[in-house]
Amino acid sequence: MKLETCFTPALYPYISISENFIVVVIDVLRATTSICTAFDYGVRAIIPAAGVEDARRYKNEGYIVAAEREGIKLDFADFGNSAFNFMNPDLKGTTIAYSTTNGVQAIETAKNADSIAICAFTNLNALANWLLKQEKNVVILCSGWKNKFNLEDSVCAGALAELLLISQEFTSRCDSTQAALDFWQSAKPDLPGYLKRAAHEIRLKKLGLDDVIPFSYQLNTSNAVPVWNGKEIVNRQTAD
Amino acid sequence: MKLETCFTPALYPYISISENFIVVVIDVLRATTSICTAFDYGVRAIIPAAGVEDARRYKNEGYIVAAEREGIKLDFADFGNSAFNFMNPDLKGTTIAYSTTNGVQAIETAKNADSIAICAFTNLNALANWLLKQEKNVVILCSGWKNKFNLEDSVCAGALAELLLISQEFTSRCDSTQAALDFWQSAKPDLPGYLKRAAHEIRLKKLGLDDVIPFSYQLNTSNAVPVWNGKEIVNRQTAD
Repeated sequence: MKLETCFTPALYPYISISENFIVVVIDVLRATTSICTAFDYGVRAIIPAAGVEDARRYKNEGYIVAAEREGIKLDFADFGNSAFNFMNPDLKGTTIAYSTTNGVQAIETAKNADSIAICAFTNLNALANWLLKQEKNVVILCSGWKNKFNLEDSVCAGALAELLLISQEFTSRCDSTQAALDFWQSAKPDLPGYLKRAAHEIRLKKLGLDDVIPFSYQLNTSNAVPVWNGKEIVNRQTAD
Repeated sequence: MKLETCFTPALYPYISISENFIVVVIDVLRATTSICTAFDYGVRAIIPAAGVEDARRYKNEGYIVAAEREGIKLDFADFGNSAFNFMNPDLKGTTIAYSTTNGVQAIETAKNADSIAICAFTNLNALANWLLKQEKNVVILCSGWKNKFNLEDSVCAGALAELLLISQEFTSRCDSTQAALDFWQSAKPDLPGYLKRAAHEIRLKKLGLDDVIPFSYQLNTSNAVPVWNGKEIVNRQTAD
């Protein structure tokens, strides 16, 4: 199978793979890490909500809503976007609307794919094992930051690419994949140290939202395989 | 001054720097390397021509024309796009129309900049010295390949970023610059070896156009400082 990497949604129109493919969305800080955590705590499904009004609509329809803007929980929301908010046994079996600008944009962008999966540092092995069983080409789509390249998603892309390529089930002739593998090689010995330079890490620190960073940079603490089913994100950990 | 890096023209709309800035265009294989070479051989000016019809119009107007498609010289052109074609003392003082899809696109993209300069591995020091005298912010714009990220331009961006940042006249809070610096650190000990994986190098090999690659990966063999003056590209090597 073929593997291609796309550093931001703005570059998605230029990918070469056009059929029989899964898009893997990465938004390490914080959406995809939070989604994996939610499934680890037994959440039934996540509905990505783009704008504040979407999130409010879900709240009015009775959903639990995770939503914040600039680090502040929206007044009608049940909690904010950090992975820590999902570490709650009371959430087992629930459906949560999760407001995430970059994450929703990535899913909207990738709607031409056969399916869309969710990747973070925490579920690398679980997701790679699932992807290896699907017999589909893979496009890794980094959410980036407002369409810009970002470092943490690109390093995570490299970590996933490594797992897929060492299986020898995948090949890649894409410079972005080569670059992502390089980031991962440089970052691997000290991931938190490497990502100290990342602009979004600095941004979260300014907002006082950096408490979740060490958690987000842990490898393989989650078995979640979150997959968009056209309507909501569900956990395919055991389903396929 | 601020420094920002943009990996492909498709990402240019998302740059943060918006005033008092120079855009540095990089298209190592082969446009920007060829342009530096042309100035080293005394060419007076280069006019970038986008399409085949533009190039033909310049030919009809009496210009010398460098133009090829898929590695084959266009029938009306004087020669193709390789740097080797410009190593000709007869070209001294002439004005050449150079047909380059990616290069022209990058110049068109950057027209809101105060000025546009041309960078290759061959003129890194010359260009960095000139940039340090301009007291402007700098956006490095990699031409990429049909709007995709490419490795050789991004490595070259890192090499230029290193020169600007070690001067301490520039600061950068941009993840793309951090990534480019990383590429350059990885590539520096063996640039040709590092870039063997680059998709465009493989593409040029297939077309039999790879003879110019070792030349293009030499550092600082050129003193050219090619700058777009709104009409044509001229050499500012001694002018500023």
